[in-house]
Amino acid sequence: MGKSLEYLDIAVKGWMHDARIKMLAALDEDLDVWTKSGRNDLVTNIDKEIEKFYIENIRLLYPDANIIGEESFTKADLNVDGLTWFVDPIDGTMNFVKQHSHFASMIAVYENGKGIRGYIYDVIEDKLYWGGPDIGVFCNDVRMKEPSNDTLRNGLIGIGAPYLIHNFCNLQVVALASSGTRMYGSAGIQIIHVIEGKCVGYVSYLRPWDFAAGKILAEVLGLSVKMIDGAPLNMLVSSDVLVATKNAQRDIAKLIKKS
Amino acid sequence: MGKSLEYLDIAVKGWMHDARIKMLAALDEDLDVWTKSGRNDLVTNIDKEIEKFYIENIRLLYPDANIIGEESFTKADLNVDGLTWFVDPIDGTMNFVKQHSHFASMIAVYENGKGIRGYIYDVIEDKLYWGGPDIGVFCNDVRMKEPSNDTLRNGLIGIGAPYLIHNFCNLQVVALASSGTRMYGSAGIQIIHVIEGKCVGYVSYLRPWDFAAGKILAEVLGLSVKMIDGAPLNMLVSSDVLVATKNAQRDIAKLIKKS
Repeated sequence: MGKSLEYLDIAVKGWMHDARIKMLAALDEDLDVWTKSGRNDLVTNIDKEIEKFYIENIRLLYPDANIIGEESFTKADLNVDGLTWFVDPIDGTMNFVKQHSHFASMIAVYENGKGIRGYIYDVIEDKLYWGGPDIGVFCNDVRMKEPSNDTLRNGLIGIGAPYLIHNFCNLQVVALASSGTRMYGSAGIQIIHVIEGKCVGYVSYLRPWDFAAGKILAEVLGLSVKMIDGAPLNMLVSSDVLVATKNAQRDIAKLIKKS
Repeated sequence: MGKSLEYLDIAVKGWMHDARIKMLAALDEDLDVWTKSGRNDLVTNIDKEIEKFYIENIRLLYPDANIIGEESFTKADLNVDGLTWFVDPIDGTMNFVKQHSHFASMIAVYENGKGIRGYIYDVIEDKLYWGGPDIGVFCNDVRMKEPSNDTLRNGLIGIGAPYLIHNFCNLQVVALASSGTRMYGSAGIQIIHVIEGKCVGYVSYLRPWDFAAGKILAEVLGLSVKMIDGAPLNMLVSSDVLVATKNAQRDIAKLIKKS
């Protein structure tokens, strides 16, 4: 990929910290909010501005990179040859708008389909979760340990609301078999809870930019990141995604049914 | 009640800050954890220790007070004559154990059935939400404003997982009519989200010590705190409880069905 990964880390962390300052400033002002696929799928002027900021910076340093950005990708971007960047400026835009907390900014870098760097930034808490297979995973400057391989019965499970309400794949039974269900409204925040060991799993319908960074970090920390039926994820396709400890993944596999 | 409310505020805040230090220290050590009504209804040695600490302090200053503590009340305590204290040392014990965050410590004071002081302490964030009808509601030292009277459609709704899974009173339809569903696993934390305007409502099955403090703070801030069918709460009975903006309460009333 030419430039070193250390160089990439320094650059991306700088962009994300600058983006944080823009986001915090925006929370004190009126946001322009539009809907996308439905009335609860929001985008703001800040999502667009931060994505543009990330993409311009990526293009300056990596002019040939392929960039799949939530708010701006085109079909031509949908390939993972060479260096591919997944950019989600604000994951949990509804929370950004309504709660001013519980949202994340995410960037992931893949090389020929293999994840090399994931970054999930809990903006309000100022905690950047980042790393890759060659160096491990860090929360800011502190190296993270693999979370305990807890079972479903002994752990909390994050489930997207539509999946729980419609009992997708029998997930209501999965919820009742766990220690409790949690819903925070941001894939990034929910995946942070799994890599920190606060939840044993998270399952939801996700787009590639929702799971690209989390997949890298979770797998480096010994977690399973697959479709709910155990099939591998396609990095260019939206699908159900289960991030879980290996024991919880095994427990969930026994309970799910095809929807 | 003899001593002034200013005196009471100073005393309770001191106890709660001391309790916080005990809780944070406990998170670095091994907890003793037992189950109560079911495998997901937990109590730890710290719940018991903090409740004992609160009750001993209350008895020192208010020897005749009636105290309804989650871990220690008896049937004889179940009356609201005179000065009655509701004590929940750790609300969200599962989160305390599994997440080391998202739990609250709560105290409420009623006089002849009328709420005079509520305290909800977000222990990890070090934010104490407190107040009463005579002084308003504060977050630490900052006076809180009434949250915007948003509709269900324009707001996030907190729903307890069993209620959503079993579609209690048609709450799945309520969830789908909102801007999104949130589940944090602590009544105190969920009620904080409503009084801050981050969610338009919260509905769950609650015990008196789960809602006693929140009811005072929410009502002072112009929110509705009732059973889901609009009936008033009995302070000595566990029941479904809906804390919501008046507009969201009205919207929800149109959607619910008797379960």
